[in-house]
Amino acid sequence: MAGNSSESGTKTTKIRVAAVQMRAGEQREPNVEQAVAGIRSAAAQGAQLVCLQELFATPYFCQVEDASIFDLAEPVDGPTNRAIAAAAREARVTVLSSFFERRAPGVYHNTALLFGPGGEELGMYRKMHIPDDPQYYEKFYFTPGDLGFVSVAAGNTRVGPLVCWDQWYPEAARLTALAGAELLFYPTAIGWLPEDKPKYGPDQLSAWQTMQRSHAIANGVFVVVANRVGIERSGDRQIEFWGHSFIADPYGRVIAEAGEDPCVLVADCDLGLIETARRGWPFLRDRRIDAYGGIERRFGAPSR
Amino acid sequence: MAGNSSESGTKTTKIRVAAVQMRAGEQREPNVEQAVAGIRSAAAQGAQLVCLQELFATPYFCQVEDASIFDLAEPVDGPTNRAIAAAAREARVTVLSSFFERRAPGVYHNTALLFGPGGEELGMYRKMHIPDDPQYYEKFYFTPGDLGFVSVAAGNTRVGPLVCWDQWYPEAARLTALAGAELLFYPTAIGWLPEDKPKYGPDQLSAWQTMQRSHAIANGVFVVVANRVGIERSGDRQIEFWGHSFIADPYGRVIAEAGEDPCVLVADCDLGLIETARRGWPFLRDRRIDAYGGIERRFGAPSR
Repeated sequence: MAGNSSESGTKTTKIRVAAVQMRAGEQREPNVEQAVAGIRSAAAQGAQLVCLQELFATPYFCQVEDASIFDLAEPVDGPTNRAIAAAAREARVTVLSSFFERRAPGVYHNTALLFGPGGEELGMYRKMHIPDDPQYYEKFYFTPGDLGFVSVAAGNTRVGPLVCWDQWYPEAARLTALAGAELLFYPTAIGWLPEDKPKYGPDQLSAWQTMQRSHAIANGVFVVVANRVGIERSGDRQIEFWGHSFIADPYGRVIAEAGEDPCVLVADCDLGLIETARRGWPFLRDRRIDAYGGIERRFGAPSR
Repeated sequence: MAGNSSESGTKTTKIRVAAVQMRAGEQREPNVEQAVAGIRSAAAQGAQLVCLQELFATPYFCQVEDASIFDLAEPVDGPTNRAIAAAAREARVTVLSSFFERRAPGVYHNTALLFGPGGEELGMYRKMHIPDDPQYYEKFYFTPGDLGFVSVAAGNTRVGPLVCWDQWYPEAARLTALAGAELLFYPTAIGWLPEDKPKYGPDQLSAWQTMQRSHAIANGVFVVVANRVGIERSGDRQIEFWGHSFIADPYGRVIAEAGEDPCVLVADCDLGLIETARRGWPFLRDRRIDAYGGIERRFGAPSR
C-alpha cells in the first residue's frame, strides 16, 4: 500500500463536529430539552456541526406495533424541529435533526433534517432502508424514503445524512459520497436484546463499528454516528441501547468514541484529509462503473 | 439488533478452508513447488478448499514498469496452472490459482482460476479493479477484466474469486455475493513501503482487514484472504508484504489469522452460518434496488 506520505491535500480546513448521545425518556419535551442542551454544550466546546441521535424526541417506539403511536409523528415544521431550529440559531451551529415525520395521513417517514446556523433548513433525507426485526418493527411505522441519497451543502463542506439501518448498506454510503458528501452523519438507535447480549453483544457492536469504518475507508469521508443509550422498556420487552457513538476519519481510524453513558462527543475533522486519503488510496478512480449494473438486481447473476 | 439467537439455518455442512501464505523467490519453479507443498499441507490438514496468494509463481513484479516482464505471462493452460491442477487432483482438493495471464500479444490479465478436486477447471475470473500506485504499477501490466463478477460452483458451495485491489470495493463483494458466492476468496499481494510503515503501517493493515470484514458482514458470506509475506526488492525499491492472511465468518468475526511468516492457515467454515446470519441480520432483504442506479456514475448526484 502506498501514497499516504504525500499529505498534499489542497483543503486544510478543520471543522469541529459533535455527536449527542442521550438516554431518552417517555415525554417529548424533556427529550427535546436534553437535545437542545447537547447542542448548546457542543457549541460551547466549539463544534460547528452537530449530529443528534435517531428519533431523539421519543422513546424508541418500534418495540411494538400500535397504530396509536402514529400520533407521535410531527410535520416537518412541528414543535420538535422548531425547537431544534431555534437551538441551532441561538448556538450558531449546524444541526442534523431526526424525527418521526407525518407527511400525510398514512404516510409517515423516519426523516433527518439539517438546520443551518441561522436556523434555516438546509436539506432533508428520508430513511431509505427500513428494518424489521423483533422489537425493531420499523416497517410498520416508516414508509421507505423517496428522496434518494443526498448530500447537503453546509458552510464549507457537505453533510450526507443517513439513518441507522442505512449503515449496513455500502450502496447508501457510496451514493451519498458520490453526491459530494464529505461527512456521513448517522443518527442511530441500536442496542442489544437481553437474550442476545451475553452471547452476541460484542460481535454485534464490532460488526456495527466495522461496517461504518469501512464506509469511511471505501469513500474517503468522515463518519459521524450518534447512538442512544440506556434500557428502554415496552411492556415485558426491552432494548439496551449500546451507545458507543463515534467519529471516524477517511482512513477509518476512530478519532473519538463514547462509552455507554450520555455524552456530547466532540472531534476535530481535518477536511484536507479527505483529499489526502483519496490521493493515497485512490479507490474512487478505479471503480468499474461499466460493470456495476447488477447492483440493481435483487439476487442472482446477470444473464450473460 | 436482534435475531442471532435463532440459529435455525437449514444448511449445516462444515467445510475446511485454507489460505497459503508464502514468501516468493525470484524463480518460478521453486515458487510453484512451494505452492504445491502448501496445497498438500492444506489437504493433509483436511482442507477441501485452498486459496493461493496473488501471482504466487513470481515475485511481485509490478514495482517497476518493464515491457520485458510480459515474458512472465502464461496462457491459461501454462506450466504454472498445469502444476496446480495436478496438485489439486493429487490432493483431491479445490484450489484457487492466481496467475499472470497471456491472452494475446498485448492483452495480459491478472487472473484467478478455480480447479476442482479432479484437476478440472471450474471457473475463471479476471481482476476487475486494477491499481496504480508507486511500486504497484499494475495498470501497466494488467488489462482490466472482462468477465464481470462471478461465483463458481465448487462441490456443495460456491466460491467467489476476487483479487487484491478488488477488496477495497464493496461493489465487487456485493455483486459476487449476489451471484451466489458463499465464500469470497482474495489472492492478495499487499505490503508496506519502507517510508510509510512507521507512520501508517498499523492503520493500513487495520483498514485492509476492516474492509474485508465489512464484505463478510454486509453480504453474509465467508471471506478468505491469502497474502504474501517477506521483503521483495526491485533495484533500490522494496515492499514488505505484510501477510496477516485471514478467514472471517459471515458476522465479520476473524476465525483464523496468520502472522508475518509463511504458513498454511486453516479454518472450519460452517456454511449453515450463512443462512443463520442472513436471517438474523437480513440486509439483503431490504436493499433499495430501485434507488441504486447512481452506482454506475463516476461522480456526482443523478440529476433529479
